[in-house]
Amino acid sequence: SVPPGVLPLCRQPPAWGRAARQCPSLLQPPDLQLAPRRAFSNNKILVELDESSGVATMKFKSPPVNSLSLEFLTEFCISLEKLENDRACRGVILTSAVPKIFSSGLDITEMCGKSTEHYAEFWRAVQETWLRLYSSNMVTVAVVNGSSPAGGCLLALSCDYRIMAENPKFSIGLNEAQLGIVAPFWFKDTFVNVVGHRIAERSLQLGSLHPAPEAREIGIVDELVPEEKLQEKAAAVMAQWLALPDHARQLTKSMMRKPVLDRLVAHREEDIQNFISFISKESIQKSLRRYMEMLKKKKG
Amino acid sequence: SVPPGVLPLCRQPPAWGRAARQCPSLLQPPDLQLAPRRAFSNNKILVELDESSGVATMKFKSPPVNSLSLEFLTEFCISLEKLENDRACRGVILTSAVPKIFSSGLDITEMCGKSTEHYAEFWRAVQETWLRLYSSNMVTVAVVNGSSPAGGCLLALSCDYRIMAENPKFSIGLNEAQLGIVAPFWFKDTFVNVVGHRIAERSLQLGSLHPAPEAREIGIVDELVPEEKLQEKAAAVMAQWLALPDHARQLTKSMMRKPVLDRLVAHREEDIQNFISFISKESIQKSLRRYMEMLKKKKG
Amino acid sequence: SVPPGVLPLCRQPPAWGRAARQCPSLLQPPDLQLAPRRAFSNNKILVELDESSGVATMKFKSPPVNSLSLEFLTEFCISLEKLENDRACRGVILTSAVPKIFSSGLDITEMCGKSTEHYAEFWRAVQETWLRLYSSNMVTVAVVNGSSPAGGCLLALSCDYRIMAENPKFSIGLNEAQLGIVAPFWFKDTFVNVVGHRIAERSLQLGSLHPAPEAREIGIVDELVPEEKLQEKAAAVMAQWLALPDHARQLTKSMMRKPVLDRLVAHREEDIQNFISFISKESIQKSLRRYMEMLKKKKG
Repeated sequence: SVPPGVLPLCRQPPAWGRAARQCPSLLQPPDLQLAPRRAFSNNKILVELDESSGVATMKFKSPPVNSLSLEFLTEFCISLEKLENDRACRGVILTSAVPKIFSSGLDITEMCGKSTEHYAEFWRAVQETWLRLYSSNMVTVAVVNGSSPAGGCLLALSCDYRIMAENPKFSIGLNEAQLGIVAPFWFKDTFVNVVGHRIAERSLQLGSLHPAPEAREIGIVDELVPEEKLQEKAAAVMAQWLALPDHARQLTKSMMRKPVLDRLVAHREEDIQNFISFISKESIQKSLRRYMEMLKKKKG
Repeated sequence: SVPPGVLPLCRQPPAWGRAARQCPSLLQPPDLQLAPRRAFSNNKILVELDESSGVATMKFKSPPVNSLSLEFLTEFCISLEKLENDRACRGVILTSAVPKIFSSGLDITEMCGKSTEHYAEFWRAVQETWLRLYSSNMVTVAVVNGSSPAGGCLLALSCDYRIMAENPKFSIGLNEAQLGIVAPFWFKDTFVNVVGHRIAERSLQLGSLHPAPEAREIGIVDELVPEEKLQEKAAAVMAQWLALPDHARQLTKSMMRKPVLDRLVAHREEDIQNFISFISKESIQKSLRRYMEMLKKKKG
Repeated sequence: SVPPGVLPLCRQPPAWGRAARQCPSLLQPPDLQLAPRRAFSNNKILVELDESSGVATMKFKSPPVNSLSLEFLTEFCISLEKLENDRACRGVILTSAVPKIFSSGLDITEMCGKSTEHYAEFWRAVQETWLRLYSSNMVTVAVVNGSSPAGGCLLALSCDYRIMAENPKFSIGLNEAQLGIVAPFWFKDTFVNVVGHRIAERSLQLGSLHPAPEAREIGIVDELVPEEKLQEKAAAVMAQWLALPDHARQLTKSMMRKPVLDRLVAHREEDIQNFISFISKESIQKSLRRYMEMLKKKKG
């Protein structure tokens, strides 16, 4: 499902690809291999595969706010790729193990006071995450069980379906403009594909974080469900989508999303350079530092 | 109105074009020519033109389900072209003479166990139908008085306005994915132009057939009307659209639809080859045969 | 904010550009320069800048109907450019000083019985107006306090936000087709960006003028407010938009609108030629003359 031209996240031959399928022992204890429910936990994401339904769950468990650090993104891509190549897996649910937060978005510490090389590596991982998730052959469902600003919102927008907890305290949106930064064009393209041009234009300019009811109304999420029913609902949605023949569904999904995927693939290096030169500006660095100070004080 | 590059459906000089206008006797009994209401009935479609209003009705009468066979499509194109070139005709209503069904979509028997040449001819006729209908200079109104899956839905989507019977038992949608096949890109483009990207993405992937109330809600049809009021409503809608000067309305329509029409015209032969290689796959043939068996048993 | 390739409206070096910022005395009486509220009134538009909020108001005062004559458009562009280059100004409100009408759109007398050169000059000014307004770096809010057909609607659509008086007697829409003329592609693109393809297609073909409640429902305007609360609401909306850092908001706006702006810039001369050859047609001239006669009789 990965579009042509997408570079592998790691330079070494992928340990989680076709090879992995042949020797799963590299990835998990052999005694779990035949169990109906397999789990492999890494540092940041707990992955469970229910072999009877063919549905995996990726649970973000990187407190305090599931921020998307380079380590998180790398683990996300590896886990997703593993599932993508696992014939037993046809669908993935993304959700959070941290109360009240789905994901807070890109980790600001990765963008502050680091080297140009680091910025490049980090941004390539952000791109890779989106390219793999948005083009996944699996059915992808986001169970947004907490707030989900910026990059967290992008993860949800990249799925096939979004269920959000019916809690007006939780909000979601591409609020980059609030921090003085600009959502990249492929964040914008993904957003426009979900909510249309007008709503995207207004929401992006205002950097809006939409409370759950408003997010439902303007189409950022597909439905709201009481928190205790999220899992049940996700299973039902998954069953509906998995009732379709994989091949036709996958080709249809690709037809809908390819133009937007192709655009990043065609401009990937340029997009990295843009990010580096933007993030390296002293004014931006200053504004991010101020923001981090504020977050620290809040916690303290 | 036919975009440049559109090949005539038949190779011989069109008998229904400008020439036809000069000798209408070729097409219908001379004694009907001056009557205020002219009718010409072929095998599959009954065409009536009300000269006082300038509105023609094309009534599909190909039981049991108005499936779009090569014969049906050829007749559709010829009839539409006749009306297009008839100065007395400014609008067309598409509807069904078969109870409970508008059209069941492409005739599966045309796609099953036939020669490559046949597949090419059939697919060219499907393209031609859409190119002519979507680019028609006339005002086109679909009166969806029954269910309308797949290609039947495409016919409705290609009109300027869609009225559906207010009957939750009738459903409409591009449900190709349910049969394991993929709606071509120009079905998708037409759908996106009507309902937007997000609704199209979800509906196409799920191969959804939307009951009339839902179809109205998501914008597949413009309004629901009790079955006995459909004709009356269609006449009123037609009158509203025909109140506009033809020339400005036609140029506006063309401006809106040209990009999507041009895309098929530019990739027409490629699209035929894609269809042939897809439909010729043993797995697809098997799935279509299974589907036809199921339909036969249902009837039996 | 003006896209590359946009020709200056006037041939002489812009008196209202960077130079103007250095010598504002060219533009307004020196004694007003330090006042908290500055005003400069020209013939057709009253411009007031509230320096404490950074918000300017451009009030159309060209009775009887604020029609967009060459003089009006030239003044509009000069005023907008002045504000654009004034560091004290971050947002503009467009509204009308004429009761019951926001703007009636392009001045038909400019398109009737004039020379080819005049048509070219007029059309270039129409393009310039849209290019400058749609790409403005300032926050732009339309306070639609009266009816707003055709070009008047375009002005509103080109803003960031639209508030309309809650009065069902006021209507808004791109009704060009009613006059037998066709909205240019960039009117259409702007409209599609606001209401989506389907609503634009239908509304443009029918040349619909939507009463305020309907305009709100289909998204032409963002909200309706009782007439006496319009100014208060506009100030509140402006404050919300101005709370964002300018730079991020401007880059986001440009990202959303650039494709549509670029399209006119790339086809500008062609678009002028199209306008000239269309408007010079005897049939169109006749229809415009008839329309003007009708308007005169109405008044008389």
